[in-house]
Amino acid sequence: MTSEAVNPGSVRPGGRTARVRSAVLRAAGDALAEHGLTGLDLADVARRAEVGRTTVYRRWGTPVALVADLLADMAEQSLPRTETGTLLGDLRANARLVQRTLADPRQGALFKAVIAAATCDTGAATALHRFYETRVSEWVPCARQAVERGELPGGTDAREVVRAVSAPLYYRLLTTGEPLDEAAADRAADAAAAAARAGAFVTPTD
Amino acid sequence: MTSEAVNPGSVRPGGRTARVRSAVLRAAGDALAEHGLTGLDLADVARRAEVGRTTVYRRWGTPVALVADLLADMAEQSLPRTETGTLLGDLRANARLVQRTLADPRQGALFKAVIAAATCDTGAATALHRFYETRVSEWVPCARQAVERGELPGGTDAREVVRAVSAPLYYRLLTTGEPLDEAAADRAADAAAAAARAGAFVTPTD
Repeated sequence: MTSEAVNPGSVRPGGRTARVRSAVLRAAGDALAEHGLTGLDLADVARRAEVGRTTVYRRWGTPVALVADLLADMAEQSLPRTETGTLLGDLRANARLVQRTLADPRQGALFKAVIAAATCDTGAATALHRFYETRVSEWVPCARQAVERGELPGGTDAREVVRAVSAPLYYRLLTTGEPLDEAAADRAADAAAAAARAGAFVTPTD
Repeated sequence: MTSEAVNPGSVRPGGRTARVRSAVLRAAGDALAEHGLTGLDLADVARRAEVGRTTVYRRWGTPVALVADLLADMAEQSLPRTETGTLLGDLRANARLVQRTLADPRQGALFKAVIAAATCDTGAATALHRFYETRVSEWVPCARQAVERGELPGGTDAREVVRAVSAPLYYRLLTTGEPLDEAAADRAADAAAAAARAGAFVTPTD
């Protein structure tokens, strides 16, 4: 979900196969960010990655399969959560991370493209759901620990607290032309914290 | 934004041109809901609408231009807001309307498709932003009146309150495979109301 998470500049384990995958996914991310889903072409990705076209066709087959693998890779590389000691501190750190990622021209375009891909194809949708599942799970302890510290009421659905931080930022990205600035990030975190404290995310027991 | 708003079953004013537009936009909505943006084809839309292919090509030219016109039409037909007399009542009515629309198979697929179109094309993006601008404006008085009634603090950004209701529902639709049920709608409304009461949407005056 972060700049680092989807800019695989780091050295990866594995031999040639892993290097090829890394180069191809990097190229696919670039192509998606530049031209969107409709401009994603396997031959172009092969050229950008300096990998044989046959390799790309044989291993991924379709643009959507390539998007699904890119999402799996993004999930694997998702950064660990921040731990500040308070609910608001943790949610603000999370919101700023999402905001920086979505406000980044390459990353913002890439996220728009993978969300668009998920609307067209069930394989890409499954991969997208898994990515967000991984991401949300990483941050769930923030809300759980806030319950233990007495900052949030018992029975609070930790996943919903984490999702409440991201939702307004994605909604702003997708439905408005307005900038995703730090004020938007802090507002998202503050709103999620206030709603959680008021018990809006307590799961009904009936 | 509602079932009625994008199911143009009602009689429209205007002569043949208006009838052709109505039939074509209805067909475009059906095609988008069935096959997504990548399956939107002008010849197929003409066939479904029982309108000459040349008419469709001449008037709309590209699939994306057709999506932009569909969004303009959806904005024109957006239903008036509900007025219940309390902030929570108004926000819950709004959330249930959004939830019913997005949970409807045809409408949910249609909204996913137009959001995907907006990620690929600036014309579609502008039309999508205008649609949500119209929709948010319609519901803004709920939050303004809540400030006048003393339910919300002065300086509350009414647009952000309205957006906070929709955001978690769209986020759930786009990033999870989980059902969009009435519980999700009520939680979205309750969270937005709680955050607004706590002052999370008060615009800083500095």
